[in-house]
Amino acid sequence: MDFEIIEWKDNTVIMLDQRLLPTEEKYLTLNTYQEVAEAIKNLTIRGAPAIGVAAAMGMALGALHSTAVDYNTFKTEMRSVSSYLYKQRPTAVNLRWGLERMERLIDAGKGLSVPQLKTELINEAKKIREEDIQTNRLIGLYGHAVLDDGDTVLTHCNAGALATAGFGTAIGVVYAAIEAHKKIEVFADETRPILQGARLSAWELKKNNVPVTLITDNMAATIMRQGFINKVIVGADRIAANGDTANKIGTYSVAINARYHNIPFYVAAPFSTIDLRIKHGDQIPIEERDHSEVAVINGKRLCPEGINIRNPAFDVTPAALISGILTEKGILKPPFETAISAHHAESALSS
Amino acid sequence: MDFEIIEWKDNTVIMLDQRLLPTEEKYLTLNTYQEVAEAIKNLTIRGAPAIGVAAAMGMALGALHSTAVDYNTFKTEMRSVSSYLYKQRPTAVNLRWGLERMERLIDAGKGLSVPQLKTELINEAKKIREEDIQTNRLIGLYGHAVLDDGDTVLTHCNAGALATAGFGTAIGVVYAAIEAHKKIEVFADETRPILQGARLSAWELKKNNVPVTLITDNMAATIMRQGFINKVIVGADRIAANGDTANKIGTYSVAINARYHNIPFYVAAPFSTIDLRIKHGDQIPIEERDHSEVAVINGKRLCPEGINIRNPAFDVTPAALISGILTEKGILKPPFETAISAHHAESALSS
Repeated sequence: MDFEIIEWKDNTVIMLDQRLLPTEEKYLTLNTYQEVAEAIKNLTIRGAPAIGVAAAMGMALGALHSTAVDYNTFKTEMRSVSSYLYKQRPTAVNLRWGLERMERLIDAGKGLSVPQLKTELINEAKKIREEDIQTNRLIGLYGHAVLDDGDTVLTHCNAGALATAGFGTAIGVVYAAIEAHKKIEVFADETRPILQGARLSAWELKKNNVPVTLITDNMAATIMRQGFINKVIVGADRIAANGDTANKIGTYSVAINARYHNIPFYVAAPFSTIDLRIKHGDQIPIEERDHSEVAVINGKRLCPEGINIRNPAFDVTPAALISGILTEKGILKPPFETAISAHHAESALSS
Repeated sequence: MDFEIIEWKDNTVIMLDQRLLPTEEKYLTLNTYQEVAEAIKNLTIRGAPAIGVAAAMGMALGALHSTAVDYNTFKTEMRSVSSYLYKQRPTAVNLRWGLERMERLIDAGKGLSVPQLKTELINEAKKIREEDIQTNRLIGLYGHAVLDDGDTVLTHCNAGALATAGFGTAIGVVYAAIEAHKKIEVFADETRPILQGARLSAWELKKNNVPVTLITDNMAATIMRQGFINKVIVGADRIAANGDTANKIGTYSVAINARYHNIPFYVAAPFSTIDLRIKHGDQIPIEERDHSEVAVINGKRLCPEGINIRNPAFDVTPAALISGILTEKGILKPPFETAISAHHAESALSS
């Protein structure tokens, strides 16, 4: 792919400014963890796996510029960097996952000097990025088994390369199928209010020569009824231990529509998106974002002043509507509780 | 209500320019049937009942400015005016209904002079407008029986006063319930791509002091799951003899979501929206509008160039998902085929 999402380069973080897509492909150079935090908050970078990588790189920048000389001061400082980054987005569990992985390295590095720790943290952030791309390739490799040659896939929001360090999860499965010489087309929901489908999924699919058709979110049901859609694949921001999946607002509606039309509905996500501390979907915190995202498009207000507006950024699709979860360890099938805990036990043994 | 949708005044048609709402409340003065046709096409006026009234008034303007002196020339001229108006929007049957009613008057007026016919046609157009408001009041009067005090109603697109000559159909039922001292709140789907919910429904509900909450279309399912919605009421652009209902794109998805959450789903429409010539929904022509409506908002393109876009303006909700059709003759219950033909037979007898 001839674009990058996030990279560590010359002690800075280079980040594609996704707010400007598809009009402009511009890369920002971030020098501080506060700049990374702001980029996470204002959606310069978005997508659960990408947020996890960005958080780790934010920690690395915080470490790099720390003036601490002893371990304890450094550790305290990094804790504060971590909590600052953590509070930027509440729903994606990968944010916490990325930060916790960096913190574990600090915990384990008690015998090291601060300069050594800084080097280790920077390397760890780079490694998290590399691993994310590798993980996505595996999700695609296992996941594309659900796609048949000639299928048309509906996707919602952007769980593509742009939502990750590279390759993508839901759209990664499409890329992997195409690499395996299957002919696949994609329908992309525009995904109001932020329009990640129109701006991002359409952009990267076009860029990668995948035939893509854009629809407004409310057209999905009718397109399904007309027989255009064979499979639905979406990403995830957090998956509960029972398989209930938080993802971009509108995903739940797509899942209900898919069920009504007997179309298989898949979630593609790395294991880091599964949060075993959350038993079921109702416990997943849902971010309510600024109402201007609904009320204003391209600087112009669409609705009258003085009315109520709701803007939950995510919804929860119950496990019962999900045909399978496509992960880097294979395809999880219902009942997800059993499938997830089996894989978790396995990785606990191997780590 | 302190706004008008369409009026006949001093031999012109005064029309609220709905494209400018909610920012600006501006009235256009139309002098020719071509201007009325353009206003129907470019959505200055929209909503099936309002289009029916506009078409009749377009015919009246055509008649007014006719230079024909004999009946046959006049009739031929009016036929051409009628077909010109007819081709502006294909889905709403009320357009044809309004034109046919005017043509019937010409057929019946063979003995009249052209000036007499012109006066009759102008009076008929004014009468169609008055009757539409009366019809909507009756839809509300019968229809609000489905609403309980304290209900919150979800509606899609705008089937309010703005979609008719006044009072509205789906939202008219809400107005009627409130006049009957029920406490009712409304959730309005923004209704992409044209945003009639955000721009029009929110505007008129606010203007009439009805509590309204705006959501993007893809939030409806989650708002239903959270228990906010007691009833769904939408309008219709054409209803087949079996009850299958064409309405604004996205209605079908709302109906599936309502069924999944066991929420009653009602269609509110005058009998003129029922097209007995159409046996079932698959036969209803669906207008595919310009793709720029999806691709561009407020003058800025949202998606990359060179991708496919779909823009069906309507979808068809199968009768099986509809709990009742609220009409000026009462509430039709399933099986609609029987209910519709019974009422049709009755009006054939009384007319």
